[in-house]
Amino acid sequence: MSGGWLIIAGLGPGADALVTPEVSLALADATDVVGYIPYVARIAPREGLHLHASDNRVERERAAHALGLAQAGRRVVVVSSGDPGVFAMAAAVFEAVETGPRGWRNLDIRVLPGITAMLAAAARAGAPLGHDFCAINLSDNLKPWALIETRLRLAVQADFAMAFYNPRSRARPEGFARALDVLRAVCADTRPVIFARAVSTPDETLRVVPLPEARPEMADMRTMVIVGSSQTRVLARGRGRGPWVYTPRSAP
Amino acid sequence: MSGGWLIIAGLGPGADALVTPEVSLALADATDVVGYIPYVARIAPREGLHLHASDNRVERERAAHALGLAQAGRRVVVVSSGDPGVFAMAAAVFEAVETGPRGWRNLDIRVLPGITAMLAAAARAGAPLGHDFCAINLSDNLKPWALIETRLRLAVQADFAMAFYNPRSRARPEGFARALDVLRAVCADTRPVIFARAVSTPDETLRVVPLPEARPEMADMRTMVIVGSSQTRVLARGRGRGPWVYTPRSAP
Repeated sequence: MSGGWLIIAGLGPGADALVTPEVSLALADATDVVGYIPYVARIAPREGLHLHASDNRVERERAAHALGLAQAGRRVVVVSSGDPGVFAMAAAVFEAVETGPRGWRNLDIRVLPGITAMLAAAARAGAPLGHDFCAINLSDNLKPWALIETRLRLAVQADFAMAFYNPRSRARPEGFARALDVLRAVCADTRPVIFARAVSTPDETLRVVPLPEARPEMADMRTMVIVGSSQTRVLARGRGRGPWVYTPRSAP
Repeated sequence: MSGGWLIIAGLGPGADALVTPEVSLALADATDVVGYIPYVARIAPREGLHLHASDNRVERERAAHALGLAQAGRRVVVVSSGDPGVFAMAAAVFEAVETGPRGWRNLDIRVLPGITAMLAAAARAGAPLGHDFCAINLSDNLKPWALIETRLRLAVQADFAMAFYNPRSRARPEGFARALDVLRAVCADTRPVIFARAVSTPDETLRVVPLPEARPEMADMRTMVIVGSSQTRVLARGRGRGPWVYTPRSAP
């Protein structure tokens, strides 16, 4: 096991220009890259680099596989999109470490941060996360829907801006419709909702609508949704451009 | 004003290896860099590049200055540490746009995301933000303390992991002590608190303590504080290393 290590790296939202040099260096030094198929597809093949792509929903098995490779002396990068610590592979790896062989705790493991989707989406829209905010994974794959709903209500009470990851999965499209219903019941009609899809890729789209006009089908699996706080401002621009959306630094 | 533009760019937490290529390219193309003194100090001087460093707490004036330069045809980068959209200069620029001359709305303005402090800190500790979380600026410079306290209580109710920016300013050191008191009154004694100081710089330190042992003086102006949720796990390691801290992806 001499020299083996495991790095969990964030590739950012899509564009190569948003991959940090730290992550690029780790990839250049790796013997193995492990990850979900579309993320591994972003890694340029080269002599001596083994690419291990796996399907969605097998995060724990993928993590165990990567840990085993590192223990066998390989230099392994587990790739996530965005930041690996935000609804991504880093937690899955530490879950595997906790329940796996004791030796895994002493492996050389590092997490390299990346540009997470909410920061890339917020940057395109202006600065909607410029004041206190929260990030909620709307998938009820790994938690009960009631907990998501409780968090939404408390987030509105706290007057956080809100970033929603995984707003609308193919398997559970109804969750996001219910989330919008919860918000509409307690938020003013002026509350802006940002739909940022595939930011930094050729498929990028950005749409800003007031909450009453937000519809579930405006989001898909590649969409990040950001809902402003009660203080969030929408600045109209000229020349057919979309508005700027920002949350002021100060609050009354 | 031909060709002028304004980019608000995030330099990440400190290391050059955490500056995205997108930001490096913008800086290479700039005629003017505007920002708080220690951030402008990170930019390598070169022929034809004007560096405009200003003191803290003049964000609005700095933003107006940068907008004026862009309108005059300059290629201006406003630099922030971390991500410019998270408690940083992007919101200040849009505040200035909203209240400034109408022409500013049609300037070519872009925000380039960066690695924000909480992601860099979380990566060093493991994956404490691996489940739903919130980010709260503990400075009561621009909002009443009562609002901060309300948000802390609601965040605990929602069982968010919590990232605290500006935990302890020189001007208001007592706020963080009060925040810890609020948390101690409602959270279990096992709740882990991460103090991550100057992450990715030569001064980096990381400390993980259970909530009862967290003391205000463990944080200063360069410290990011992350408090786990009720589900956050602390994994002891051998060989004199600090523990891994992670929040599982699933919640009951």
